[in-house]
Amino acid sequence: MSALSGNNRFNARIKWLATATSDAWLQQAIENPIEVLIDHAHCERKAAGAAVQMMFRYLCEPGFAEALSPLAREELEHFEKVLAILKSRGHYLQALPAPPYGSALAKKIRRSEPGRMLDSLLVAGLIEARSHERMFLLASYSPDHELAKLYRELLESEARHFQLYLKLAQERFDKDLFTLRLKELADAEADIISVLHPEPRMHS
Amino acid sequence: MSALSGNNRFNARIKWLATATSDAWLQQAIENPIEVLIDHAHCERKAAGAAVQMMFRYLCEPGFAEALSPLAREELEHFEKVLAILKSRGHYLQALPAPPYGSALAKKIRRSEPGRMLDSLLVAGLIEARSHERMFLLASYSPDHELAKLYRELLESEARHFQLYLKLAQERFDKDLFTLRLKELADAEADIISVLHPEPRMHS
Repeated sequence: MSALSGNNRFNARIKWLATATSDAWLQQAIENPIEVLIDHAHCERKAAGAAVQMMFRYLCEPGFAEALSPLAREELEHFEKVLAILKSRGHYLQALPAPPYGSALAKKIRRSEPGRMLDSLLVAGLIEARSHERMFLLASYSPDHELAKLYRELLESEARHFQLYLKLAQERFDKDLFTLRLKELADAEADIISVLHPEPRMHS
Repeated sequence: MSALSGNNRFNARIKWLATATSDAWLQQAIENPIEVLIDHAHCERKAAGAAVQMMFRYLCEPGFAEALSPLAREELEHFEKVLAILKSRGHYLQALPAPPYGSALAKKIRRSEPGRMLDSLLVAGLIEARSHERMFLLASYSPDHELAKLYRELLESEARHFQLYLKLAQERFDKDLFTLRLKELADAEADIISVLHPEPRMHS
């Protein structure tokens, strides 16, 4: 998989992320396309659920519902797209044990406000950024043309999503506080994915 | 409000509902358009949340996600429409104490499967049917042209929504069981709204 050190590999880097995805993850994902696709469907529906949940929690905060409701709709649309491809290949949703990624990141979110809001936005943004980075890799290196096309189609909106979460945070918090906490959480995110999870997942 | 006994009033009846909305509710709603509009925004987002929640609960049940995900997207779109009108009138979302309607109906849902699935679908369908009936009334009788237009626009998809919930139930349950339980729950729903809630709500 020597192509991984080429230009595309470099372009997949996202400035908010503290580390780039390993070649080992990409290899694992490419070798298990259906399991990753099922997990991807779960990621899209969970992302929609998380956006709806955040919107419900901060309902009277102007600007949140206007941003999060369309985002949730888009995640649901992606979920439907992934589900349609799964079905066309004779598969359906099935329960998959989740990797530790999401719950380990959720533990980093402080319990009391305003830290909770800042952390929730940054963690959601980092998850979207990592998804974007990995979809770019799958779009670039997947030997399955239909899947590569799917990931290419989803890429652009994933980029908008992480920018949106970070913008919601930037608009509401002091610049230094935002930068410091983003770095702390990005480091934590990098730590969590530094050891490859044995089961192939979007966030293994 | 003599127009209420006219033809439109009759057309608002929906065959699944055990009783028609009272003139007292319509009068209360028309006299409190902003409070009802804010409550309506909450109803749309709660309906989206409920569809997402039901999809999550029955994730591996073929046919559920394909139906409920687009429905949730449509509810979110309605939520955004209502929010835009609220904002254009200088209002925003605000917490409103919920009427007893939703929680009283939720109590009728049996705790164990398969009763839980049947009841959840029927209760969701009845709530959508009642919303449809009331939006039809507001579309017909609201003296506020912008609001009447809004309700007219939302009507058609609300009708699709209750039909969709009932179809999901019909496809999965014995016809007699479906009919009997729908009648029981429709009677319970009619009982709950038989006493007008003092605060103006979509389901007061």
